[in-house]
Amino acid sequence: MIYLFTGNGKGKTTAAIGTSLRALGNGEKVLFVMFMKDKTITSETKVLEKLENITIKSFGRRGFYLPKEELEKNPDLKKYGVRPIEEIDVKLAYEGLSFIKGNIKNYDLIVLDEICVAIHFGLVKKEDLINLLKEYPDKDFILTGRNCPQDLIDTADLVTEMKEVKHPYQKGIKAKKGLDY
Amino acid sequence: MIYLFTGNGKGKTTAAIGTSLRALGNGEKVLFVMFMKDKTITSETKVLEKLENITIKSFGRRGFYLPKEELEKNPDLKKYGVRPIEEIDVKLAYEGLSFIKGNIKNYDLIVLDEICVAIHFGLVKKEDLINLLKEYPDKDFILTGRNCPQDLIDTADLVTEMKEVKHPYQKGIKAKKGLDY
Repeated sequence: MIYLFTGNGKGKTTAAIGTSLRALGNGEKVLFVMFMKDKTITSETKVLEKLENITIKSFGRRGFYLPKEELEKNPDLKKYGVRPIEEIDVKLAYEGLSFIKGNIKNYDLIVLDEICVAIHFGLVKKEDLINLLKEYPDKDFILTGRNCPQDLIDTADLVTEMKEVKHPYQKGIKAKKGLDY
Repeated sequence: MIYLFTGNGKGKTTAAIGTSLRALGNGEKVLFVMFMKDKTITSETKVLEKLENITIKSFGRRGFYLPKEELEKNPDLKKYGVRPIEEIDVKLAYEGLSFIKGNIKNYDLIVLDEICVAIHFGLVKKEDLINLLKEYPDKDFILTGRNCPQDLIDTADLVTEMKEVKHPYQKGIKAKKGLDY
């Protein structure tokens, strides 16, 4: 089964975490791979890493990054610490895919958190992901991230669009540790 | 903060579980209350109950139930074990609200799983829930469930609609233990 959580609203990564817990409760083994994120900054990692039968890996650097051309179109974003995607980011993302291939036999459910963003930003070629998914039809996969390409929606068995209806930042309220990261 | 996960797609309860883990990782205390569900049948409960600083309670009976009038309109549903809502279901839901009120001082984040459905089916009056939420503005709440009334959307700070784009049951595939429950 391939589950895909996409859309611009909150709840994609947390739904992947919740589903991972459900799989653990059913006696399964889970590999949770974060793309474009450094796991040391997320609150949930501290709890997940204490659990048995789940491996958490992150293949990304801290901070927020955009394709160079996007950043050149919006140079103001640099003030907020947004940086251009570099070769190292692509390398890290592909290390993530290699790690999955090399270890997949030990797991039942594999989560690829923010993989849709990694594809959207050109870090990972969508064909490489789709080939990986098709190579292991007996495994369960959860993919997350906004801006999911249609090919991936076509490949997935279940797709939920997390649609933002209302968000506190619309009222100028910032992200809250423990709820948002 | 009041977070609300609604819509007809998958990922509402699992997003609440994932956000609970995030709060735990941030050193918070979590009360996770399930309405209209019996916690003994969910896989995730087994893992959540092993964690520290989280209390899981369920205030519902097993099975699926509908308002009597709805069931009379669709008598075929009885064949699938759907039963009418009875007085005991209302009583249980209100025991859930009372439990929250009586214990809220010990927690930072309170999850009311499937509370929107409990309101939609008339088990809980929406005013009673909104009053509870307004009584404790210093606490964080997560509400889940489809068919959320507009008043509750207005009351919440963050609302995500989990929208079903694609689901395996469209291909006749049944729910899978460990992924879906």
